[in-house]
Amino acid sequence: MALHIKSLENLINEFKKLPGIGPKSARRIAFFLLKLPRNDVLKLSQSIIEMKDKVKFCSQCNGLSEEDICHICRDESRDRKIICIVEEASDVDIIEKTGEYRGLYHVLGGLLSPIENIGPDEIKVPGLLERIKTYGVEEVIIALNPTVEGESTTAYLKKILKPFTVRITRLASGIPVGGDLEYADEVTIGRAISDRREI
Amino acid sequence: MALHIKSLENLINEFKKLPGIGPKSARRIAFFLLKLPRNDVLKLSQSIIEMKDKVKFCSQCNGLSEEDICHICRDESRDRKIICIVEEASDVDIIEKTGEYRGLYHVLGGLLSPIENIGPDEIKVPGLLERIKTYGVEEVIIALNPTVEGESTTAYLKKILKPFTVRITRLASGIPVGGDLEYADEVTIGRAISDRREI
Repeated sequence: MALHIKSLENLINEFKKLPGIGPKSARRIAFFLLKLPRNDVLKLSQSIIEMKDKVKFCSQCNGLSEEDICHICRDESRDRKIICIVEEASDVDIIEKTGEYRGLYHVLGGLLSPIENIGPDEIKVPGLLERIKTYGVEEVIIALNPTVEGESTTAYLKKILKPFTVRITRLASGIPVGGDLEYADEVTIGRAISDRREI
Repeated sequence: MALHIKSLENLINEFKKLPGIGPKSARRIAFFLLKLPRNDVLKLSQSIIEMKDKVKFCSQCNGLSEEDICHICRDESRDRKIICIVEEASDVDIIEKTGEYRGLYHVLGGLLSPIENIGPDEIKVPGLLERIKTYGVEEVIIALNPTVEGESTTAYLKKILKPFTVRITRLASGIPVGGDLEYADEVTIGRAISDRREI
């Protein structure tokens, strides 16, 4: 794209690097910003670097926070005997929104992957074991995505947590609420049958 | 979305204001930036405000430029006897990419719209007439989108340009190259028939 306007081409190139934004969207956003009042553009520009500078990882659960310890780990009213293990910090928010969970979290920040050289230390397993011992945790919920990496990380965690006297659970697999048997895949239906519950 | 992380929520809200970015994309981009090295994030942040501060409107054609006069108006090799009228500065780039046009441009920056209170002065018509007189322009190509506002602006321009001894043309309407008669709408096919050319 030869716009002959360096700063504009620059910006379009920067936007193209973001997930889900192709060349046409990047262009559209850049021209949109051109029409916006300078103050609004400044707000966007500043909020980007401000977020980057302020948001840190919680020293306890590895989740996101502007403080050293996140609001969930600080919250005295939460059940410290139960830890939910998630892959990404964004998963914490997804589970929080359900309102169904009142325990603590542990964010792995990734999944085991021998190919990408991600081992137990990279996904913060030592910190997790430390917390289980310190708090006398009674239950660990493994809430990883049911993908190949998720399943193998789950299997690894199950093995490593065995020596602790802690209940290990995982999220139920099954038909989504409001879903349709016709559109569910066979593995999901199979799991829904084997995990069937009395009503 | 109660993330309890102000700077992150802030950023997501800013991204949501951009065209084509919904709440989920905004979230995804924000978490993507969280994982990026600070320098890359700074580059994005700076390129936004830099573009806003550097890019101005060309004092002659109203197109975009970092200088007072854009590279097209400055280019002595271009044909100054022909002006192509477009709606937005981004349209200049679209026509330039075809490599078919070697004249100058005039960017209206909008279309006539009595409802939105956009009259001839808002779409830079006086500047256009001035240029036609000054350069002794021989042809004006009206390259507006074939929408209701585009058509009525075209009609207005045709009327206002009548007193000048200038050839007034518009972009051909018809079947897109590589297109299919079966998928073209009736108005387009009708226009393609009435605008048919000898071969």
